[in-house]
Amino acid sequence: MFAKDCWYVAARPEELGEGLLKRTIAGEDLVMYRAASGAPVAFLDRCPHRLAPLSLGRRVGDDLECGYHGVRFAPGGQCVRIPGEDAVPGHFRARGFPLLEKWGFLWVWLGDAARADPALLPGDFHWQGEPGWCPLSGYVQVRAHYQLLVDNLLDLSHEAFLHMNTIGNTAVAETPARTTLQGDTVEVLREMPGCTPPRLFSRAAGFAGPIDRYQRILFAPPCFVIIEVKACLAGTGDYENGLVWWVLNALTPETEGSTHYFWGLPRHFKQDDAELTGMLAEGIARTFNEDKDMLEAQQRILEKVPLETRTVYIRADQAPSRARSIVAAQIERERMAAAHAPAVSVALDPVR
Amino acid sequence: MFAKDCWYVAARPEELGEGLLKRTIAGEDLVMYRAASGAPVAFLDRCPHRLAPLSLGRRVGDDLECGYHGVRFAPGGQCVRIPGEDAVPGHFRARGFPLLEKWGFLWVWLGDAARADPALLPGDFHWQGEPGWCPLSGYVQVRAHYQLLVDNLLDLSHEAFLHMNTIGNTAVAETPARTTLQGDTVEVLREMPGCTPPRLFSRAAGFAGPIDRYQRILFAPPCFVIIEVKACLAGTGDYENGLVWWVLNALTPETEGSTHYFWGLPRHFKQDDAELTGMLAEGIARTFNEDKDMLEAQQRILEKVPLETRTVYIRADQAPSRARSIVAAQIERERMAAAHAPAVSVALDPVR
Amino acid sequence: MFAKDCWYVAARPEELGEGLLKRTIAGEDLVMYRAASGAPVAFLDRCPHRLAPLSLGRRVGDDLECGYHGVRFAPGGQCVRIPGEDAVPGHFRARGFPLLEKWGFLWVWLGDAARADPALLPGDFHWQGEPGWCPLSGYVQVRAHYQLLVDNLLDLSHEAFLHMNTIGNTAVAETPARTTLQGDTVEVLREMPGCTPPRLFSRAAGFAGPIDRYQRILFAPPCFVIIEVKACLAGTGDYENGLVWWVLNALTPETEGSTHYFWGLPRHFKQDDAELTGMLAEGIARTFNEDKDMLEAQQRILEKVPLETRTVYIRADQAPSRARSIVAAQIERERMAAAHAPAVSVALDPVR
Repeated sequence: MFAKDCWYVAARPEELGEGLLKRTIAGEDLVMYRAASGAPVAFLDRCPHRLAPLSLGRRVGDDLECGYHGVRFAPGGQCVRIPGEDAVPGHFRARGFPLLEKWGFLWVWLGDAARADPALLPGDFHWQGEPGWCPLSGYVQVRAHYQLLVDNLLDLSHEAFLHMNTIGNTAVAETPARTTLQGDTVEVLREMPGCTPPRLFSRAAGFAGPIDRYQRILFAPPCFVIIEVKACLAGTGDYENGLVWWVLNALTPETEGSTHYFWGLPRHFKQDDAELTGMLAEGIARTFNEDKDMLEAQQRILEKVPLETRTVYIRADQAPSRARSIVAAQIERERMAAAHAPAVSVALDPVR
Repeated sequence: MFAKDCWYVAARPEELGEGLLKRTIAGEDLVMYRAASGAPVAFLDRCPHRLAPLSLGRRVGDDLECGYHGVRFAPGGQCVRIPGEDAVPGHFRARGFPLLEKWGFLWVWLGDAARADPALLPGDFHWQGEPGWCPLSGYVQVRAHYQLLVDNLLDLSHEAFLHMNTIGNTAVAETPARTTLQGDTVEVLREMPGCTPPRLFSRAAGFAGPIDRYQRILFAPPCFVIIEVKACLAGTGDYENGLVWWVLNALTPETEGSTHYFWGLPRHFKQDDAELTGMLAEGIARTFNEDKDMLEAQQRILEKVPLETRTVYIRADQAPSRARSIVAAQIERERMAAAHAPAVSVALDPVR
Repeated sequence: MFAKDCWYVAARPEELGEGLLKRTIAGEDLVMYRAASGAPVAFLDRCPHRLAPLSLGRRVGDDLECGYHGVRFAPGGQCVRIPGEDAVPGHFRARGFPLLEKWGFLWVWLGDAARADPALLPGDFHWQGEPGWCPLSGYVQVRAHYQLLVDNLLDLSHEAFLHMNTIGNTAVAETPARTTLQGDTVEVLREMPGCTPPRLFSRAAGFAGPIDRYQRILFAPPCFVIIEVKACLAGTGDYENGLVWWVLNALTPETEGSTHYFWGLPRHFKQDDAELTGMLAEGIARTFNEDKDMLEAQQRILEKVPLETRTVYIRADQAPSRARSIVAAQIERERMAAAHAPAVSVALDPVR
């Protein structure tokens, strides 16, 4: 069960070219491509005729032709050709989805297209593309439910155990965080004055002694966690000569048991240092692979034992629990709205 | 759910030799071998004693001995030996199946053996073995429900999209076909005068210009599609110097998700041209592997979404739809007959 | 469904060292290690906090620390540390299991720890460790339900068909055995005077002519089969210069479809002959791999067809059937006891 009336990151721009990209997003099999203009197009990856996957077809101009019997569809979904027939019934449509490109990602809307408002994109992603910021992004597939990834990022105390070789230090587990709710968002603030710098921080910013570390985590439903990170030499307040970045996490559900983890890490220091960019790309990939191993092991257990069977809740669980409630309420709202929607007559029988 | 009171192609003659051949047909696990006389024998592949697979046993004379505890069965099923015991109860039987060899295939009957009449074999297969015809046959396993393969062969418009390198031309998609029902069979006739020859046709028969192409497709339940194919230079009517063959398709269900696709292609031109035979074997294998890829992708979708959810039916679906109705009715008749049969007392408890 | 109030062999002593050993026993995922004293420790392999597997954590002194958020547990289960918190609630516990080392194996108790009495170990295993006996042991994982392995060992007539290259001879199938019940145990006695020696027997004891073979099989629930084996030259009664060993079989269920087969073979002849020990290790491994192939094939059939559907029961099935009844009764007793136990209040809600 996934929220549908929302934007999900579906791909990175460089993945979408001449060919057809097949990918499952929140349980829906999609096929994506670019029209001649470069505009991104998304279809449900099945032909409404015999349910063959459209991703085995081909792009013909801006249209998509099924590779099995040659039925052809225009962006948006309207059928424009049936081989061997003169006319096409107006209601012969494939299912299309709004797909737009912004802030270094392609975003798809799986719910009611009429509500697909770009203003509903998670705004904090704008840092990936801001002047004065050096962009960096990556992807890792994780065979775990996306909410386990949300949990992971809202309780960063785990950095002290799982990531001591990169972004972890002891302070992140020992320092209490302050959790605040605002509408449908959750904020977790943790300030760690005078702590040992994590290894990756020292390598990136050259810290020689204790630092003041600042960590502000923002959750936006259903699957976005944005982390503002700052660090400077302890007591100096000099972030300008320290470390400033955002970690933008789009935890797109693939299926009930797997996640497309798209991430961005725009930084506001040493923007032109390509060697640093490479080092960070490698360090973050290593870190997220440590998460991947743990999350996939946790997922395998949760497939046998529901999370609800755990009996103990500790202080660090506050933000993850709130985020889960917010998403559950969103899914419930969508469910109720669907139940009360006026009945749509769907032709399940052959149309002729 | 499969029809059982019918013949299915279970193997090609050269597959059956000294050893034991294990194969699943319509959901039943079989083990097959030849008796000393060469006569083919088929058993359900499990010992009625402890359910070990008989295919792990060995042939002893004409009998089959279980490899676990040595219980031995004669063709037909009667137990003839229990190690350490003097007598064998008359009702200690393994399950045997009628298995016969005809027209280049081995045919098994899974239903009531009393009704296993060779007259019920699909008669059009006789072409594979007719004097004056050059036989050719092959096999491909397809991980898709056999009815998807029936659909595929009853709507050959797909040749224009999937098989343009071998047997497809544009005419086959653009020319309407005439569908006729006769009892439990379906016939589809498509005549394509003055069309471009498919590549494989040109290579086989040396066509230099447009041809008249003739295609008659016959469906016999539950899984046979026989295609009469003729082509000659346009307007000449000279099939004798053109191309004449039958494509005999036995789409034996293996499981609900896979099919043993046995095919024959007896031809009535250049019968002694071994090079042509090799070229055709390769071309047909290539063609059916193109089908295999599409059908397996379609199957994966249908395992998530039932075929009934498609909303649009086009003219080309007529014959496949009729064939599905015929098979559904056959299965329903078998189900009703079983429900009204006099109760058979089956000993589920130990017999002593 | 498995009996829980009983000891199961969980590992061989040499498997348990510094690190964490992860293994599933009777459906429960365990993690095991040794405390500094060498004492074996077993936990359920999931953290009660967020259900991460504790086997991805690390040993800290005698305690076990979760690798995800650093929560730490003492042997027995009590939580002793929550990072970032001052106190630990007394009821914050992981689940621990009694684990003890005896007779060359590690034994775990999955049921009520209060009933984990070492006196309930299957006593015949004491031969593995008796002075004057040469120990030998091994392990093979079998993808079959453990009761199929019990069946296998209680009906050794199969040696004549599956193991003719090692421990089988014709006599073992042709000689009737006497089955006796005593409480919850089953005994099968088969005496085979003047029979051909099995190949492995000849190689081990140098038999040149017919032997008297003695085979006494003992079943102790839920999964122990102990076989006393003796052989000497026919008519001499001279076992001292013949072959004397026990085969100790601990058929620990892993899941409903797989078994940890731990075996011991202490012998009372040529105790110091290392070459013989090596030959026996190899011969027994070969023999049990022949069983593995058959049992796994049988399991695959039983996953489609329940064992109850077999219709024929032969004399050799007597002991396996009794053993199955005994285990079924034990599981039923445990089920009833659980149903009538006073309700325990389990905190399913967050504790704070």
